[in-house]
Amino acid sequence: MTNSKRTCLAADVGGTNIKVGLVDEDGRVLARQGFPTASGRGPDMVMADIIRHLKGLAAEAPKGRRPMGLAIGVPGWINQADGVLLKAPNMPGWVNVPVVEIMSRAFDLPVLLENDSNLYALGEWHGGAGRGLKHLLVITLGTGVGGGLIIEGKLWYGAFASAGEIGHQLVELRGAPCGCGGRGCLETIASATGMTRLGREWLKKKKETLYRGEPDRLTPEMMFDLARRGDPMSLAVFRRAGEALGMVLVGVFNLLGLEGVIIGGGVAGAFEFIRPRLLEIMNRGLVVADPARLKLVRGELGEDAPLAGAPALLRALAG
Amino acid sequence: MTNSKRTCLAADVGGTNIKVGLVDEDGRVLARQGFPTASGRGPDMVMADIIRHLKGLAAEAPKGRRPMGLAIGVPGWINQADGVLLKAPNMPGWVNVPVVEIMSRAFDLPVLLENDSNLYALGEWHGGAGRGLKHLLVITLGTGVGGGLIIEGKLWYGAFASAGEIGHQLVELRGAPCGCGGRGCLETIASATGMTRLGREWLKKKKETLYRGEPDRLTPEMMFDLARRGDPMSLAVFRRAGEALGMVLVGVFNLLGLEGVIIGGGVAGAFEFIRPRLLEIMNRGLVVADPARLKLVRGELGEDAPLAGAPALLRALAG
Repeated sequence: MTNSKRTCLAADVGGTNIKVGLVDEDGRVLARQGFPTASGRGPDMVMADIIRHLKGLAAEAPKGRRPMGLAIGVPGWINQADGVLLKAPNMPGWVNVPVVEIMSRAFDLPVLLENDSNLYALGEWHGGAGRGLKHLLVITLGTGVGGGLIIEGKLWYGAFASAGEIGHQLVELRGAPCGCGGRGCLETIASATGMTRLGREWLKKKKETLYRGEPDRLTPEMMFDLARRGDPMSLAVFRRAGEALGMVLVGVFNLLGLEGVIIGGGVAGAFEFIRPRLLEIMNRGLVVADPARLKLVRGELGEDAPLAGAPALLRALAG
Repeated sequence: MTNSKRTCLAADVGGTNIKVGLVDEDGRVLARQGFPTASGRGPDMVMADIIRHLKGLAAEAPKGRRPMGLAIGVPGWINQADGVLLKAPNMPGWVNVPVVEIMSRAFDLPVLLENDSNLYALGEWHGGAGRGLKHLLVITLGTGVGGGLIIEGKLWYGAFASAGEIGHQLVELRGAPCGCGGRGCLETIASATGMTRLGREWLKKKKETLYRGEPDRLTPEMMFDLARRGDPMSLAVFRRAGEALGMVLVGVFNLLGLEGVIIGGGVAGAFEFIRPRLLEIMNRGLVVADPARLKLVRGELGEDAPLAGAPALLRALAG
């Protein structure tokens, strides 16, 4: 039995962990490995780690079939034409790293670099919840809020090769400070960091909650568990996240007339608690389409999404 | 002397007035006529008015050169493929009007229908302040707030043929009621209606102002004059409009990475008073581009903009 599908290699570089995978052309992850990002050791050592793990995976590719290429997602700004990671906010010292050059020395394959949110979006579009849509936005709710916009079946880069930044839509002009230097961005409310902040504010006000731990130890995961038990704090935090997301998505849909939005990322598990208020705001605010006609769902691929985006990236840039 | 440029006919149908024009292929308006919209007399009579005025203009076209077509902008939702005006919120009774069919009976020319904001955007892009840009948004600040989005040098329609609705971006979740049925839309603040409302609220609170008239008689034009004399009310209203516009434009730029935004419409005259706060918000909120690299200017064509969009529309749909 031979697998007739072509494969590709993929790496998803995060500030904390790195995942590498062998992926078939439909975006199915055939094999994966994960390991911590030793980012303090500098880009060269980390790249060497990635190469070693990828070589191991490449050996598992179906016999006689070379992978069609290697796609790498990184958490920062890139110059895609040169294959350079310009800056990664959460990885100090990672400035102007020639990722594609380094990888091309190790692999005799086409190598492409992409922003991690964009690769995630390609994954959900190509092999996940966005399959078959032509115009969609994929939002990742994680430590921050990221996004990738697909228009006419292609990643949208805009005039400055850095579009899709949904996390820094302004929802509260005088809101909490954001890592971007602004205030009141979506990210200050709907990210893991934002939700934790909102939960701690609730605790500080000594409002009713089932949470009994130290405010410093509160996490979105705990709030997710507590929300299932009806905890007022956790429900309020997720409701607020849905509200902020709703404000942003009303704007996005009214401006762009997309077919759908996919919500992924580590905090998307709480989507069931975020969704009701989000829909309420959208039902009230949409002027271009009936909300019932829009696809608004949780992502299907979870942590595999960026790996699943590899074949779509390689194909889009090849053709 | 013959004019070697091709021409086209254009009509801009508004709730109050109608303008028709003879336009050259670069978007220059060679001749124009304006008359009131007798919308209460029903679509058939109004269409007859438009046809009569257009016939007059067509007679002025350079000898031996037939206009290349007729483009009509209407203030409502359309089905472009069928050439039907589905609904015009400010023109009661104008429902499912087969505009293209009616016009085609009167003129042996290609006839195209477009939403008025979109036609306005095409005009500023083709022959005004947006010339040469590939990705831009044109916003009209008038009775309402309209918009037309141009992406890759083409009007963007989205999946529901009704995108570009910038007026109903949500800026204040619990803000003033909007004509769309929602609350706190950009239009409730940055339109002529919104600015008048804000001015009247200021008067009701008996805050300091140079305005001495009845609150009911206040208009944006008066506030524009008063702002030049340093009136605190008028300056505060325009500042608030700049703030709301800034919130929306931060989101639009971060998401789409456009090259520019053109601000047109009847209230754009006050742009000098709106701009400072708008830039302040954008400087703080943009994460994808240096605000200095973005074109953010007042439209150049004023009321001629929709007429100037006619050749761009006819060409885009022909090719």
